[in-house]
Amino acid sequence: MKAHTEYLTFNVPARMDFVNITPQVEAAVRKSGVQDGLCLVNAMHISASVFINDDEPGLHQDYKKWLEDLAPFDPSPQRYAHNRTGEDNADAHLKRQVMGREVVVAVTRGKLDFGPWEQIFYGEFDGNRAKRVLVKVIGE
Amino acid sequence: MKAHTEYLTFNVPARMDFVNITPQVEAAVRKSGVQDGLCLVNAMHISASVFINDDEPGLHQDYKKWLEDLAPFDPSPQRYAHNRTGEDNADAHLKRQVMGREVVVAVTRGKLDFGPWEQIFYGEFDGNRAKRVLVKVIGE
Amino acid sequence: MKAHTEYLTFNVPARMDFVNITPQVEAAVRKSGVQDGLCLVNAMHISASVFINDDEPGLHQDYKKWLEDLAPFDPSPQRYAHNRTGEDNADAHLKRQVMGREVVVAVTRGKLDFGPWEQIFYGEFDGNRAKRVLVKVIGE
Repeated sequence: MKAHTEYLTFNVPARMDFVNITPQVEAAVRKSGVQDGLCLVNAMHISASVFINDDEPGLHQDYKKWLEDLAPFDPSPQRYAHNRTGEDNADAHLKRQVMGREVVVAVTRGKLDFGPWEQIFYGEFDGNRAKRVLVKVIGE
Repeated sequence: MKAHTEYLTFNVPARMDFVNITPQVEAAVRKSGVQDGLCLVNAMHISASVFINDDEPGLHQDYKKWLEDLAPFDPSPQRYAHNRTGEDNADAHLKRQVMGREVVVAVTRGKLDFGPWEQIFYGEFDGNRAKRVLVKVIGE
Repeated sequence: MKAHTEYLTFNVPARMDFVNITPQVEAAVRKSGVQDGLCLVNAMHISASVFINDDEPGLHQDYKKWLEDLAPFDPSPQRYAHNRTGEDNADAHLKRQVMGREVVVAVTRGKLDFGPWEQIFYGEFDGNRAKRVLVKVIGE
């Protein structure tokens, strides 16, 4: 069995935004030499996500508005108990649960085995600082 | 290490519906010959889900109503920016994030290592066309 | 390839609560002897979750309030079709979809390859009875 591990770092200059990280994950799969296996990609921080969806700016705008409706940013101590601890990012921990921590993608014939529109995104919900994403490829 | 890959195709005759695909996944695990390992099952389309829950029609009705409340179908250009691009399925991309893209199931003694009520479903949110699900089994 | 499987049992004395199960998962990884691989942790019951987030009581309070807003407990037959079948836990099946069934964590140099604040939680949404969590470690 082969295994390959990489850590990617992102510093998103916005509180909430989505970054297409498919090229970096494809590069990690190539480096791994794995022909048949699984590729895990996960946010290492708990106010961020990794998810798979469409690279369409209108849809990303819809995700932002929808997530803000479901879990509004509110640094006051009134709405969120977490924001009584000196934090202001309770909303980010909620948004991340909707969008998910990780994706697991099949590797077949040495490549990410994707449907026609699948792209991997880093989802930032508490940005303006460096955060990491882990890529782990295992297989043969 | 053994690896086995299958692609299942579903054409759901409704905009939103859930299909129990456990028998097809069990068949893929048998074909793989894997006794101990992991089985990934994921939607290859970004307006569909694969998830694990109960095969109970009332619950499925509840999921549909709840998801429609959280992310209503609205083909007009007013509500969703994605639907200003010629698409009408922004709601499906949102619903799929709540229900998830994939499941990873343990394979133990040659079988899906399930709790008492676990069943695997394909969740369709923009149906009436053929879409694919990937099953990948790795292990020994 | 090595594989190790464990079943953990939890009996949470509340309808909804979160239990930090990181120590038990770390012990399973040690027992597996895997240095480089993947660790799957999933709820075996469909009204429970396994998820990764922060071990901060205020945040857990926020999760409970937020999930109760998104999918209120209501044993009456009016709100949920599932609760016309003799069940009262339709809300638990909805809450579990938001928080997720499973996590997959990389194992690197024999340890869970975690970011600074990542902790694994069992999320109970229909408690007061024994339920199981599966841990499967594969790798070399």
